[in-house]
Amino acid sequence: MRTTVGIVGAGPAGLLLARLLHTAGIDSVVLESRDRAYVEQRQRAGILEQGTVDVLRAAGAGARMDREGLRHDGIELRWAGRRHRVDLPALTGGRSVTVYAQTEVCKDLIALQLEEGGPLLFGAEALAVEDAGTARPRIPFRHQGRADVLECDYVVGCDGFWGVSRKAVPAALSRTFERTYPFGWLGVLADVAPSHDELVYARHDRGFALLSMRSPSVSRLYLQVPAGTDAESWGDDEIWAELERRFATDDDWTLERGPITQKSVTPMRSFVHEPMRHGRLFLAGDAAHIVPPTGAKGLNLAVGDVVTFARALVHRRETGSADLLDAYARTCLGRVWQAERFSHDMTALLHRAPDATPFEDRLQLARLERIASSRAAEADLAEAYTGFPLD
Amino acid sequence: MRTTVGIVGAGPAGLLLARLLHTAGIDSVVLESRDRAYVEQRQRAGILEQGTVDVLRAAGAGARMDREGLRHDGIELRWAGRRHRVDLPALTGGRSVTVYAQTEVCKDLIALQLEEGGPLLFGAEALAVEDAGTARPRIPFRHQGRADVLECDYVVGCDGFWGVSRKAVPAALSRTFERTYPFGWLGVLADVAPSHDELVYARHDRGFALLSMRSPSVSRLYLQVPAGTDAESWGDDEIWAELERRFATDDDWTLERGPITQKSVTPMRSFVHEPMRHGRLFLAGDAAHIVPPTGAKGLNLAVGDVVTFARALVHRRETGSADLLDAYARTCLGRVWQAERFSHDMTALLHRAPDATPFEDRLQLARLERIASSRAAEADLAEAYTGFPLD
Repeated sequence: MRTTVGIVGAGPAGLLLARLLHTAGIDSVVLESRDRAYVEQRQRAGILEQGTVDVLRAAGAGARMDREGLRHDGIELRWAGRRHRVDLPALTGGRSVTVYAQTEVCKDLIALQLEEGGPLLFGAEALAVEDAGTARPRIPFRHQGRADVLECDYVVGCDGFWGVSRKAVPAALSRTFERTYPFGWLGVLADVAPSHDELVYARHDRGFALLSMRSPSVSRLYLQVPAGTDAESWGDDEIWAELERRFATDDDWTLERGPITQKSVTPMRSFVHEPMRHGRLFLAGDAAHIVPPTGAKGLNLAVGDVVTFARALVHRRETGSADLLDAYARTCLGRVWQAERFSHDMTALLHRAPDATPFEDRLQLARLERIASSRAAEADLAEAYTGFPLD
Repeated sequence: MRTTVGIVGAGPAGLLLARLLHTAGIDSVVLESRDRAYVEQRQRAGILEQGTVDVLRAAGAGARMDREGLRHDGIELRWAGRRHRVDLPALTGGRSVTVYAQTEVCKDLIALQLEEGGPLLFGAEALAVEDAGTARPRIPFRHQGRADVLECDYVVGCDGFWGVSRKAVPAALSRTFERTYPFGWLGVLADVAPSHDELVYARHDRGFALLSMRSPSVSRLYLQVPAGTDAESWGDDEIWAELERRFATDDDWTLERGPITQKSVTPMRSFVHEPMRHGRLFLAGDAAHIVPPTGAKGLNLAVGDVVTFARALVHRRETGSADLLDAYARTCLGRVWQAERFSHDMTALLHRAPDATPFEDRLQLARLERIASSRAAEADLAEAYTGFPLD
């Protein structure tokens, strides 16, 4: 098989890239090792930055998002029984976020790609990226029991943290930056209307909690738990009781309970691989960087990467100049490190480290107090939350 | 001896408090264990916030400060060869800072107090604060070889971290919050004009450096060194060479050398004691809280404490209400924790921890980049640097 851009992985990064290239008249092939049902059910992030929304819309993939997505103009911070709303558009010149689950983005992009786009092969396992340093990189893969090779002009590795693409960058050229956290998130889906119409980020002595939603009738709730916790070790009543404790306010706000339909634990990790480009191989999304979920940046960073790549390739075709392709890693990494910083700091602001000292607890409270009392500090948070510019 | 307010310690907090009370017609006695020469030579901070300048002026202690102090409208951040100026008034609605050494503030206040104010006893060692929980607290002290007792309506402990005042708060009621840092500052005074007309805060892989000044002809320079470093283990040439490395820029800026006249190492500590009040005993300044020097907040916090106390006592006398005295600890601690937060974060932003990971190094650079590229982030810093409101 032969194509211009070989895309490894049909998560949101790979799917959106295929769509962006299709709309620009550039052909691609997407190889995804899992089957379609798996990709369409995998629970991940649910917060789209303004820039991500704009990109999906411009790519013709925004129709259902515009109907079913929930525009959010604020988030609420809670600590010590207090509530503080951060008014996102007022602090950022009009920017907001949209609650629309990653699984839904994937479903929309898959449907579009199968209908209008180039080949999207499920159950197609990329085995390696070869000859990335040459003008003819190759992706040997296995599909429906058959070995095949995809020959490309460019390869974009969108195959996540555990994928094969990153391994094609020679170890001698690679540098990784990493931090693991001693806690994770126990996440549940519950068939109950969200008890607040915007996201609630709660800092509590017992640990962080997040109230989010998938739709007006489905709540998505998270509890900070020790790393390595088994989701099944938490009973449903125990989860609700703990959520109630951590979200408790001094006023009469209450948390509505409902049937829990799914339970899982997400580990927390910060990770960056440099460089993000090696020859004709470009890494995008989780293949190159991971953020802890607190800032809701993972999906949006992946979108930033593939938008940057698609623009650079279009620029190359239109002008003959490889300048933007050459700038890919630098352009992406500036944004990536800002997102790493923000995600780390939001995590540190709201989570209780197992070895936190009383001094550190008070610093957290002082930081929250600062956000609630300084428009500058609040705007700094709101700008980062609604997203770093894609240009 | 008998007075309304017994003040333990003639550092800037105690001296300013005596002055504020004198101008309000309230009598006080200041007990200082050291002699006058020691107090007037002790090298400490040199950055006065706008609020501190205003208070000194209003107290009639601003004449020499207004002549000799250097108003600074900016600070410079340096990292990775880059320079970024933070324009303080542009970001804070006109606030700036003034470079005028704490020793000079003390000299001015001592001269005023001896000339116009109540008793200021040098070589008078307070031995304890007794009966703080009653309406008649007492300070037994030793002066010129004689034991004496100062009987007061109120005691304000301005005797620093090592003083006796804090010990009068019963241990069962006390709570301390603390962090020590694995580094300190090697500070030098040098007879050479400062190589930059504003303060320069440099983050370098080899550690932090700060360029400051005492006057147009005297430089004050600091290097991050490991905790416990002996100042004498650093030769003068070695100091200059290390300063040059850490301040190095991509442009043609150069550091002028000159004779080093004083060398010392300052440890770094964050510390807060709660409560700041017990009965008729009020703690102020370093007696209650310590910040690492990075944010230049120590002296200014002490000023905030004694202004709060003086206002509260005047309010009591004028209205009969003890409301403001009762609010003293709460009022001060709000400001104190913001200063602790800022001082800690400025320290973490600019110093290299001995066990820093590559990930943490990149976060520092991303934070500096953020300050340089977001007006909100920069204003957050500028507001905190120029000072939290005294009201």
